[in-house]
Amino acid sequence: MDILYFSPGSASFGVHWMLLDAGHAPELRRVDLGAGQQRSAEYLALNPAGVVPTMIVDGQAFAESGALMLMLADRYPEAGFLPPTGTAARGLAYQWMLQLVNALQPPFRHWFYPHEAAGESAAAEAKQVAGQRIGQMFDRIDAHLAAHGPYLLGDRISAPDFMLAMLCRWSRNMPKPATEWPALKRFIDLMRARPSFVTTCDREGLEEWRQ
Amino acid sequence: MDILYFSPGSASFGVHWMLLDAGHAPELRRVDLGAGQQRSAEYLALNPAGVVPTMIVDGQAFAESGALMLMLADRYPEAGFLPPTGTAARGLAYQWMLQLVNALQPPFRHWFYPHEAAGESAAAEAKQVAGQRIGQMFDRIDAHLAAHGPYLLGDRISAPDFMLAMLCRWSRNMPKPATEWPALKRFIDLMRARPSFVTTCDREGLEEWRQ
Repeated sequence: MDILYFSPGSASFGVHWMLLDAGHAPELRRVDLGAGQQRSAEYLALNPAGVVPTMIVDGQAFAESGALMLMLADRYPEAGFLPPTGTAARGLAYQWMLQLVNALQPPFRHWFYPHEAAGESAAAEAKQVAGQRIGQMFDRIDAHLAAHGPYLLGDRISAPDFMLAMLCRWSRNMPKPATEWPALKRFIDLMRARPSFVTTCDREGLEEWRQ
Repeated sequence: MDILYFSPGSASFGVHWMLLDAGHAPELRRVDLGAGQQRSAEYLALNPAGVVPTMIVDGQAFAESGALMLMLADRYPEAGFLPPTGTAARGLAYQWMLQLVNALQPPFRHWFYPHEAAGESAAAEAKQVAGQRIGQMFDRIDAHLAAHGPYLLGDRISAPDFMLAMLCRWSRNMPKPATEWPALKRFIDLMRARPSFVTTCDREGLEEWRQ
């Protein structure tokens, strides 16, 4: 059985959820971020960046939530979370996953840890800028889903959908959460309606954003 | 023939280079970023984010440099730029590509456009923070290459190596460029020794960082 080092509701959430959806529940090991366990020598040996998730597959450690989602989609092809290699649909799946990881995940980092952008004195401004960037990305994704949805690749679910839904969840306490965009709301409701979503929340002890 | 919308030395560079290395020179269409061509209605129809690269493959537009590299590696498997799906090596290739796109490419954005992080008044601080983050990533990648190199996956070149070399090139005018790290320097020299690197620089009109 695979082992997933996680923290509830963090970047490990999407990997955990995708695995449960595919019917492959991982063994969970909680990393207490508040206690700094991610900076322990033991954890840094698995994950030199000191972040969650880390996943142990066949005894080897792998990192990066988006990469784990691509890797696990390949590992469990019967789940159909990635189109076959060499197809245009596969290219679009890569495009969305990389765009989410490059342009939406980083501003969330600055939303939650705004002092990291340019120091404490600029934290308020950094948070505002991060919120604007997140809103712009939601605008763009909402327009895409309205025209080509309900999922990122159309009428089939794929790995980047789990990443997007996880990031939408992170916006739940923002002034304008993702659920305020109509096509994103439809997408989010489809994703939350999956039994695997409830199971993931249960296993991680999460009460918020269930519906 | 595929069409690549590019700007010299920008995020399109790695895609262009990988294609030439695989023996599939794309037709080039230059996007004049200084003149704002990336915000023209014509270009935004291809790339709603208004960034380079965009690539037209079989008549369809695709974006995101890292995603294009993964897609093209699948499209030209004889080049061997990605290990077979389902292998541990493939998982590591995803991990490195996503980590570069998530944790190294974004601070370069703030290094070059520091006012974007938290406004003009915090630009100097934002640039300093971005430089620190880039240096920390180079520390970590250098340690990996020293132990497991000379390439990211060991003794075989793969798609994320083109991404890493492109990002290292972006550091050439920083106070401490990537070539100051020994294992990164060895990696960079191997990558620059490829005839395809010189051809890419020639086609984009780039003189700096050839050796």
